[in-house]
Amino acid sequence: MSESYRKAGVDLQRLDALKEQIGSLVRATWNSQVSSVSRAFAGVMRCASSAEGHAIMVAATTDGVGTKTLLASAFGRWEVIGKDVVNHSLNDLLCAGAEPFFFMDYIAASKLEEDALLAIVRGMVTACADAGCPILGGETALMPDMYAPGAVEVVGTMLGTVTDEHYIGPHRVQPGDVLVGLPSSGLHTNGYSLVRQLFTRDELERYYEELGCPLAEALLLPHRSYMKEMQLARASGGLHAAAHITGGGLPGNLPRVLPENCMVSVDTGSWEAPPVFGVIQRKGRIPTQEMFQVFNMGVGMVLVMETAAAVDLLATLPDAWMMGQVLVGELGQSRLQFER
Amino acid sequence: MSESYRKAGVDLQRLDALKEQIGSLVRATWNSQVSSVSRAFAGVMRCASSAEGHAIMVAATTDGVGTKTLLASAFGRWEVIGKDVVNHSLNDLLCAGAEPFFFMDYIAASKLEEDALLAIVRGMVTACADAGCPILGGETALMPDMYAPGAVEVVGTMLGTVTDEHYIGPHRVQPGDVLVGLPSSGLHTNGYSLVRQLFTRDELERYYEELGCPLAEALLLPHRSYMKEMQLARASGGLHAAAHITGGGLPGNLPRVLPENCMVSVDTGSWEAPPVFGVIQRKGRIPTQEMFQVFNMGVGMVLVMETAAAVDLLATLPDAWMMGQVLVGELGQSRLQFER
Repeated sequence: MSESYRKAGVDLQRLDALKEQIGSLVRATWNSQVSSVSRAFAGVMRCASSAEGHAIMVAATTDGVGTKTLLASAFGRWEVIGKDVVNHSLNDLLCAGAEPFFFMDYIAASKLEEDALLAIVRGMVTACADAGCPILGGETALMPDMYAPGAVEVVGTMLGTVTDEHYIGPHRVQPGDVLVGLPSSGLHTNGYSLVRQLFTRDELERYYEELGCPLAEALLLPHRSYMKEMQLARASGGLHAAAHITGGGLPGNLPRVLPENCMVSVDTGSWEAPPVFGVIQRKGRIPTQEMFQVFNMGVGMVLVMETAAAVDLLATLPDAWMMGQVLVGELGQSRLQFER
Repeated sequence: MSESYRKAGVDLQRLDALKEQIGSLVRATWNSQVSSVSRAFAGVMRCASSAEGHAIMVAATTDGVGTKTLLASAFGRWEVIGKDVVNHSLNDLLCAGAEPFFFMDYIAASKLEEDALLAIVRGMVTACADAGCPILGGETALMPDMYAPGAVEVVGTMLGTVTDEHYIGPHRVQPGDVLVGLPSSGLHTNGYSLVRQLFTRDELERYYEELGCPLAEALLLPHRSYMKEMQLARASGGLHAAAHITGGGLPGNLPRVLPENCMVSVDTGSWEAPPVFGVIQRKGRIPTQEMFQVFNMGVGMVLVMETAAAVDLLATLPDAWMMGQVLVGELGQSRLQFER
């Protein structure tokens, strides 16, 4: 499994095992206010009660943009990275049903390259303004000898708030719920270690008929925000959970929103993966199953909803589609059935 | 100024200028809830009102541990880095008068070295347990080709809460206030780019009589937490502000807690810098003024207090001392007068 990715230096199984160990250590620090569930997209803590007696919770998420920064560096497209780090955090937060409250950034490099760092900040400012989320603070660090030449580390933390009425996740999901797919804008921020190993600079600059642009351009589209879609889905009253399709793809992220008695059935024939994934798969001769484990394959977010609410939502979101359903079943790998 | 540090790859003046530009861009995202002041140690936002009518605010800070990670890597002392990142964030938060609510971590490396990453997490868990602060979530990222061999990036974000009664900062500081110094445990997390350039591996391993230990051991002491001291100072009722002495030293950090009509006078003869700073200064033939701009010189935190409260506090904290005072004066560099 994920053989190509392992060769590119990312052993997802070993990384998952390590994350499990880290999770065990970290949970020792939790107090009674922590409401997080294991492997949630955002950590959640109760902080107060509203006048109407509802629990007010804060949700928080922290993440980087991975080695996409190295590709952005090679093509001088730093603004994309700023948008990526904000939208990645925002989408994770939306998976708890939270509204963004503020964002914090951390940018570090071995050399002071003002233009690159300011472009990253401009990208963050644009994405935060779109989300109505202030950038409350951050750090810009200069660390000689720490990074490869041209590399810049960009980490974002977003905090949001949610009341118990709107808090979504596995606790709401039931057999019979349906899965609604929301299209990605490309690779978002996952799979770049593999992509960078597959293509030469010449190939990245080449125009691909099926992409309608040079490959690098398709690879450097910014991570999309699903804030508007999530607001519509929430308004439908039947939104139970949302899975942000990041590292690990659909097989890695759908289980994160399933309760113990559930599995999912995904009809991978219900949508067509955008051509950029075909270009990658052909070049790397990567088995389809592995493609799904490393890339989002065109699905940026999966909403778990009541059927009637999903039907209503699809009428207002023309690019969303019904992609599968939640079934009674066992936890574990068996929860995912790719029908094609 | 800071000539040695510039040669080591850190141009503090250019970095400060960049941070000013970033600050201007970022402030465009602020809404009416943001109560932060420019260059505060923590960002602050109003979020609710208490039953007694007090404003409840969240304070947040994000930071890394700098190139101290490279030294920790060379000596396999990863647990220190975990403590460092937590206590650095915690001390920044304490400067707003806030109590910690939760911590989030981000750890990234080019190669998966389980032992190192788990040791970092153990250090974070220890420091968070000491502070009564849960680790709510985090990310562990594998980024091939991103980092120098052996390098691990560690970033922490801490969120805390404070009511307007306890919110401290420049808005409370007045001429006549006194400065109380709290000793550092060593370099904390600043100045390592310079130190790493000055000493060979042999020198780092050498036992120094004046240190009572090998140099590396003195350099790898963890960043100290000032939580207990700050709780005592707060209880005194006369705590107006606190400056965490990090990058930029006393000249860079004391101005961050001064209102416009104030300057400070610091008596650098009121304490003796610990021997590790003497070892560094001699080896690098660094002028004293520059030492103060790069290192904390033995002062980890400076409390700005009413005189009577400071006298009470000093009676309960034997290692704290009176190091200067706040005077009527001009903003800018002139606010700092080193009397020796």
